[in-house]
Amino acid sequence: MPSQIKLAVIPGDGIGPEVVAEALKVLKATGVDVSTTEFPFGASHYLESGTILEDSDIDELATHDAILLGAVGGDPRDPRLTGGIIERGLLLKLRFALDHHVNLRPTTIFPGVTSPLANPGAVDFVVVREGTEGPYVGNGGRIRTGTPHEIATEVSINTAFGVERVVRFAFAHAMGRDRKKVTLVHKTNVLVHAGGLWQSTVDRVASEFPEVEVDYMHVDAATIFMVTKPSTFDVIVTDNLFGDIITDLAAAISGGIGLAASGNLNPSGAFPSMFEPVHGSAPDIAGKQLADPTAAILSIALLLSQFGESDAAARVSAAVEADLSARGTTARSTSEIGSAIADAVAQN
Amino acid sequence: MPSQIKLAVIPGDGIGPEVVAEALKVLKATGVDVSTTEFPFGASHYLESGTILEDSDIDELATHDAILLGAVGGDPRDPRLTGGIIERGLLLKLRFALDHHVNLRPTTIFPGVTSPLANPGAVDFVVVREGTEGPYVGNGGRIRTGTPHEIATEVSINTAFGVERVVRFAFAHAMGRDRKKVTLVHKTNVLVHAGGLWQSTVDRVASEFPEVEVDYMHVDAATIFMVTKPSTFDVIVTDNLFGDIITDLAAAISGGIGLAASGNLNPSGAFPSMFEPVHGSAPDIAGKQLADPTAAILSIALLLSQFGESDAAARVSAAVEADLSARGTTARSTSEIGSAIADAVAQN
Ligand SMILES: CC(C)[C@H](C(=O)O)[C@@H](O)C(=O)O
Ligand SMILES: CC(C)[C@H](C(=O)O)[C@@H](O)C(=O)O
Repeated sequence: MPSQIKLAVIPGDGIGPEVVAEALKVLKATGVDVSTTEFPFGASHYLESGTILEDSDIDELATHDAILLGAVGGDPRDPRLTGGIIERGLLLKLRFALDHHVNLRPTTIFPGVTSPLANPGAVDFVVVREGTEGPYVGNGGRIRTGTPHEIATEVSINTAFGVERVVRFAFAHAMGRDRKKVTLVHKTNVLVHAGGLWQSTVDRVASEFPEVEVDYMHVDAATIFMVTKPSTFDVIVTDNLFGDIITDLAAAISGGIGLAASGNLNPSGAFPSMFEPVHGSAPDIAGKQLADPTAAILSIALLLSQFGESDAAARVSAAVEADLSARGTTARSTSEIGSAIADAVAQN
Repeated sequence: MPSQIKLAVIPGDGIGPEVVAEALKVLKATGVDVSTTEFPFGASHYLESGTILEDSDIDELATHDAILLGAVGGDPRDPRLTGGIIERGLLLKLRFALDHHVNLRPTTIFPGVTSPLANPGAVDFVVVREGTEGPYVGNGGRIRTGTPHEIATEVSINTAFGVERVVRFAFAHAMGRDRKKVTLVHKTNVLVHAGGLWQSTVDRVASEFPEVEVDYMHVDAATIFMVTKPSTFDVIVTDNLFGDIITDLAAAISGGIGLAASGNLNPSGAFPSMFEPVHGSAPDIAGKQLADPTAAILSIALLLSQFGESDAAARVSAAVEADLSARGTTARSTSEIGSAIADAVAQN
């Protein structure tokens, strides 16, 4: 663990800078020794400079211990930003270049938070989403584009190396939890090639973790359980695309993406991990102090845990929990919420 | 339209025969002229005979006007049935061989039905799922299987021909509905090749349907709206895999897969369409008269609509709706529910 955490900060677009400011306020309140360097990347930077993220930018980011990212993405109707070029050129590029093979997304329904589910029960699970392969590799193409004979393909690439390391992480992670249960979510009855690799990897790794209960669920069935019995889940391990889909659903049932934190982890430490709220840049409410900084603040708790600062991480989580359960109907600004949580952290 | 509908019936496994018996009871009660031929296909048939579905079986099924399928699939722990061989060898084989390119899955929250959502609002949408391409084509493979150097791929294949016909169906279908809105659900910011084909096809077809409102949503965001604001949707058009995932979620929010009907349509009429409840064979409750036949009965309503029997279809739907809203807490057997609905249909 570094004595001082060198943090690269990418506030990004839209509400990104607002929520990042509050996250940093809370991080400071923990007293943990952190130095920050800000980077301008995002849609605005691209529109001004013409570049999204150069190789040299990645090299520079890689000299840091961790990255905090707010949100990136401009006006979806801007023709210069179509086709997900910022998402792919920045967010996914970083996940791949920095080998963020574990995308960790915890889901808890905190006391005081309203779920859209009538009876959610006690929800506390974490999705371990693979982050560097699957249908996200960009492999595939289009031929005879725009003609009646066009064919477009997408190739999901899955490797024993890539699947095993994330499955192994999931089992190790489960060992640190009360229920010690791992559920593989996939679609092995249809995607037999990738499904076969995932299932056999889980079977093999499972034999090394006899204390962990192992379960399997098709991704379609998992969406049903997510709304009818989300307390079923403890640790879910799944591929990049299924993980993308079910973590948005998980965020929705636990009170919205305004509360969902994530860590794009490189557990080996070869490259810095990146922490980000699951929500996007929400250009429509940007600059108005209307955004909820809670997801960004909870991402700080994940960052602190990653650096072994479990005491500070617990203080941040506890302050968020207390704040959430005391939230009434009075609207507070982004910075009011951040300051309230930071004050609570400082006092504990 | 045939003067008599020649219906092939595949009761299948588990609860399949029980729900099919009730669906046929209701079909008979409509007075529509139907002749039925039963086929034994399913997991039990496979375990007894060693064959799942021969080419000659498909030829014979193809001589019928339509197919009613209960549910197929045996005990998931039976080693002879792993890897989805029944699902792929029977269900998917039929969808592909009979060119069921439109998989139509309506979602309504009927009065009296309890949704797991606290405030679902007025939900009435239909998912038009592509049924013959995408990641379901089975393309891909494994090399160096079982070694640390294994690579497994899945290739999603999308053609202008295949995408356009299902998109066109969705727009035409929307024209017959009040809100006339089509939402493309995909992941165009990541799956740029397939996403590009889908989006450009929707754009082009949309220009021929100026009265239809067009919308786009990423599949991850769609799962959020499905639980926070499902009344947003009218007609969703999407690929085979995304359609599989979101229709299970749609079934869950509207009271469960016990109520979800589907039609695997070949709108050209070149091959018979196939109607089936979305639920599986549920071996754990099979033979106990515990299954809800409603989804199978609603699949009959879809079948009748397909044959222009809109009056009979409406009578079936109305009887189901009345039955659902009168359902108290008293448990009824599968056949009690079927008889009650059949009686109501006969009397109207
Ligand atoms: C913005 C997009 C590329 C990204 C993803 O698909 O991974 C987002 O949805 C997420 O879940 O972090
Ligand atoms: C059983 C399975 C192959 C099938 C599918 O994936 O299409 C089912 O989930 C469905 O939705 O009809």
